[in-house]
This record gives sequence, structure tokens and C-alpha cells, in this order.
Amino acid sequence: MTPKELRKLSAEAGFSKPTAGFCDGYVQANMVALPQQYALEFESFCRKNPKPCPLLEIIGPGSSASKVLAPGADLVTTIPLYRIWEDGQCCHEVFDIKAFYTDDLVFFLLGCSFSFEEALIKGGIPLRHVEQKTNVSMYRTNIPLTSAGPFQGEMVVSMRPIHRSMVGQACVITGAYPDVHGEPIHIGYPEMIGINDISQPDYGDPVEIKPMEIPVFWACGVTPQNVLMKTKLPFAITHAPGYMFVSDLKNENYAVSAGHGPGLIRPKEI
Amino acid sequence: MTPKELRKLSAEAGFSKPTAGFCDGYVQANMVALPQQYALEFESFCRKNPKPCPLLEIIGPGSSASKVLAPGADLVTTIPLYRIWEDGQCCHEVFDIKAFYTDDLVFFLLGCSFSFEEALIKGGIPLRHVEQKTNVSMYRTNIPLTSAGPFQGEMVVSMRPIHRSMVGQACVITGAYPDVHGEPIHIGYPEMIGINDISQPDYGDPVEIKPMEIPVFWACGVTPQNVLMKTKLPFAITHAPGYMFVSDLKNENYAVSAGHGPGLIRPKEI
Repeated sequence: MTPKELRKLSAEAGFSKPTAGFCDGYVQANMVALPQQYALEFESFCRKNPKPCPLLEIIGPGSSASKVLAPGADLVTTIPLYRIWEDGQCCHEVFDIKAFYTDDLVFFLLGCSFSFEEALIKGGIPLRHVEQKTNVSMYRTNIPLTSAGPFQGEMVVSMRPIHRSMVGQACVITGAYPDVHGEPIHIGYPEMIGINDISQPDYGDPVEIKPMEIPVFWACGVTPQNVLMKTKLPFAITHAPGYMFVSDLKNENYAVSAGHGPGLIRPKEI
Repeated sequence: MTPKELRKLSAEAGFSKPTAGFCDGYVQANMVALPQQYALEFESFCRKNPKPCPLLEIIGPGSSASKVLAPGADLVTTIPLYRIWEDGQCCHEVFDIKAFYTDDLVFFLLGCSFSFEEALIKGGIPLRHVEQKTNVSMYRTNIPLTSAGPFQGEMVVSMRPIHRSMVGQACVITGAYPDVHGEPIHIGYPEMIGINDISQPDYGDPVEIKPMEIPVFWACGVTPQNVLMKTKLPFAITHAPGYMFVSDLKNENYAVSAGHGPGLIRPKEI
């Protein structure tokens, strides 16, 4: 399936699965949409916390069509599953946001660790959640974020069990993708970052950690959803964790050797 | 002190300290000298185990003068402290090896993790043994090596405690130095690699691991000394752990961005 086909199916409510393992090689992105009055402060928040919130594109207000990641793709319909947030609560999950769109909304697309999973697998490092076709395990932590305006809170991380002999190499490989979370934020010892039960992820699916494997943690683009809960904004929209926006850009465009991604395109309006 | 000055002092028995922290910026090397009959098999052993035994230069037989790392420097006198091995036992430590040199000896210079310590410190990652001017902690492990001829055994690792927030970055930084051990071989959980008491290093000095720090392990050029013990060669000479050969080449020559080091120069004789 091409990204365009996946987005078309999503728009027709014909695709509602986690997107990991689909459209190999293409950049997937986290999405946050906010009323314009919060947009500048949220952009500042992302720039202060680039590991969990790597900005790839900002769209709107007045438009919901991507220009950089997938020119013309409408963010109102092309994500498989959305979450509607009111006063810090996720109150609906919906297949499109036609009923909620206003031209006051600004859409933020943030990098996603799925982009470096291809490089890990090519590097000979197996990923259990990809093999088992489940959603990656994600956890709330006690790692503090730098606040901006009303936005504050703690980092969410994704976790992959890696054989002890491959952990260093996994760091080197993912470190080459600084625009999509980069190298791990933590390795081993979940309790050091406030994770008390590794078998109970806060988002996504649990995954077995076998003997001689070490849990490796990367900053995660679900972090803004944790922040929205704390910030209690009257209104926001996000993707549902694991149900990403699938773009037309290749992951390899975001490797350091390729000189990073195409750069953030900011809307002229804000 | 320049490398040339340190080597001259060593040759006059006026310098007999661990070399970490001296001659910042210059490549330091591990040394193994063997009778010619073992040289080809030892070279093969190094090539099969490049993480602990990264070959930088081979000298002799018939000469003890470096051509690549420090042109003209005599390996018989310019290392601060040597070990003489007989039948797998270290039986003397000596300030020069004039009494043991024969023109049958082949000298191997192997990369040393001191080369990437400068890059770690420049990257904002403090190293306790450098701050405290002690020798780095080194441990025997149960990580098996690939054997070649009589050479076999387990890897020796060096350990540096790193704050949990900097471990991923430490991997990325050292991964850029593949010719001097590269990224860590193991992170956290000493018992996974057969280290039962982290407070008791097998070589070098112990170092405190503070709360929120993680022990990070790199392949170590002392590995051949562990192998010599197992192999029980009739005769061999090495540097003493931590008392390295200090070369005239810069560490930055060995970074990936510089296209690695100058390449191994093999003697024509073997």
C-alpha cells in the first residue's frame, strides 16, 4: 500500500489500524491541532523540547492541507483515528474531524520513532512489536519538560527490548535521525525515569522482555497528549497513539547523512 | 607535555604514571609484542575481534620503530611501563624492554578508548576517572571472543559511569570512533556480562557510581592480556594496563567524519 492509498482508505473510514509496519520507508508523523490562540506558545514548547516534540510541519490557520510532508493531503480525514480533547480529557475517538474543524485550527506534525525503525531492522536489530504486528509500548515518565506558556508536564517514551549486544549499535543508528527523536533518552532501569511496572504500558501494547534483553527508551511524540491532559486546554485534537499521519517523504530524507529533513515550513499566517 | 616529551621521559625512566589525561588530543595505543611465529595468527585474531582489538599499526620483525603512529619512536623504551609474560603469567613489570628485545619480535599497536574520552568531555559528558586522575576501571567478562590459532578467551571491558540522561549521546559520540573501540559493547546490568562485583575492577582503579548514573561498558584493549593468560604463550610483552604508548597522531584523525584513521600499515616482512 502506498501512503496515498493508505490516506485515501483512512478518509473513507476503510483503514483504522495502528500504522506501524505499513508503507515501509515513509515518514509517519504525530499530529496535534490547536486553536490559533495557543499555536505560538505550543510551537515554542516544541522548540524547547525537541527530543519528544520534533516539529516537521505547521499547517494553518485557514488550511488543513499539508504542503511539505504530503502535498495536498487533508489532515481532517487522512489519519486513521483521531482523539478529541476537551478541558484536558480525551472525550471521543473519531475516524475524521469534519464535525470539529474550524479555520481557526493550527495543525502541528511532529516526528515519530517509526521513521528509525526501518533503519534499526536494516541494521540487523529485530523489533518485537513489528514482528508481532502490535503497537509499540509507551509509558509516562517523570522526565520533566521545559514549559512554555500553559504547556508543561512530563515526557512520554516508547520502549523497545533490544538484545544486550546490540544496544550501543541501536543508539548509533537512531542517533543519525535527530529530527525523529534521535538516540535513546534512557537505557535500562525503568524505575530511574518513574516507570514502576514495565509490563503495563500507559499507551500501546505490552511486549515481552526476554533474558539478555534491555529495555531501551526513546522520546515519544505522544508526549503532547500527556501535556494536553495537564494543560487542560478547552479544545484540542490529536491522532490516536500509534495511528499516525503517513506522509509521502522517505525516512532516509531525515538521516544525518542526507543533511536532515526538508526543514520546517511555517505558515505565513502566524 | 607533548607526546615526544612524554616518550623521551619514559625512555629515561622519568615518567611512570598511567597516561590518561596526558597529551590531550593525541591517540594512545595498547601494545602487544610476540615472537614472529605467532604474529600472523594474532593479526587474524585481532581482525576477527575488531571491537576489543582494533589494529592501528604492526611493526617488525627486525624493527621496533613506529612508522605510522609516531614515526621513529622506539617501542623498546617509550612506553612508561611494560609487562613481561611467560607461559601465560605476568612475571615482571619493567620500565623498558632492552633486556628482552630480539629481532624476532613483532609489535602490535591497538586502539585505546582514551581516544574518544576527549570527544565525550567536549560533548559535555564528564568522566569521573579523568576528573579524579585515576586509572579507568576494567573488568574481565564472559563475552566470548572469536578464536584464531592459539588465541581465544573472553573480552575485557572498560567502564565509565554516565548520568542516565547522557548515555544515548555517549553512544553516538563514541560510535564515531570505530577504530578505537567505537560505541559501548554493553550498557547497565554488569551481571549480564559476567561481572559480579562492579566495585572490584580486575584492572585499573574502582570508581563510584552515583544515583542516576548507569555503568557503560566499552570493549577494551587490555583484552589481549586476558587472552595471553589463557593462551599460555612461552613469551610475550605488553604495556601495563593504563600505561599506554602515546602517539603523534590526533584523535580527531580517527573520527568517522575524518574518514577514519590513516589505515593499518603492515610490515613487508610478514
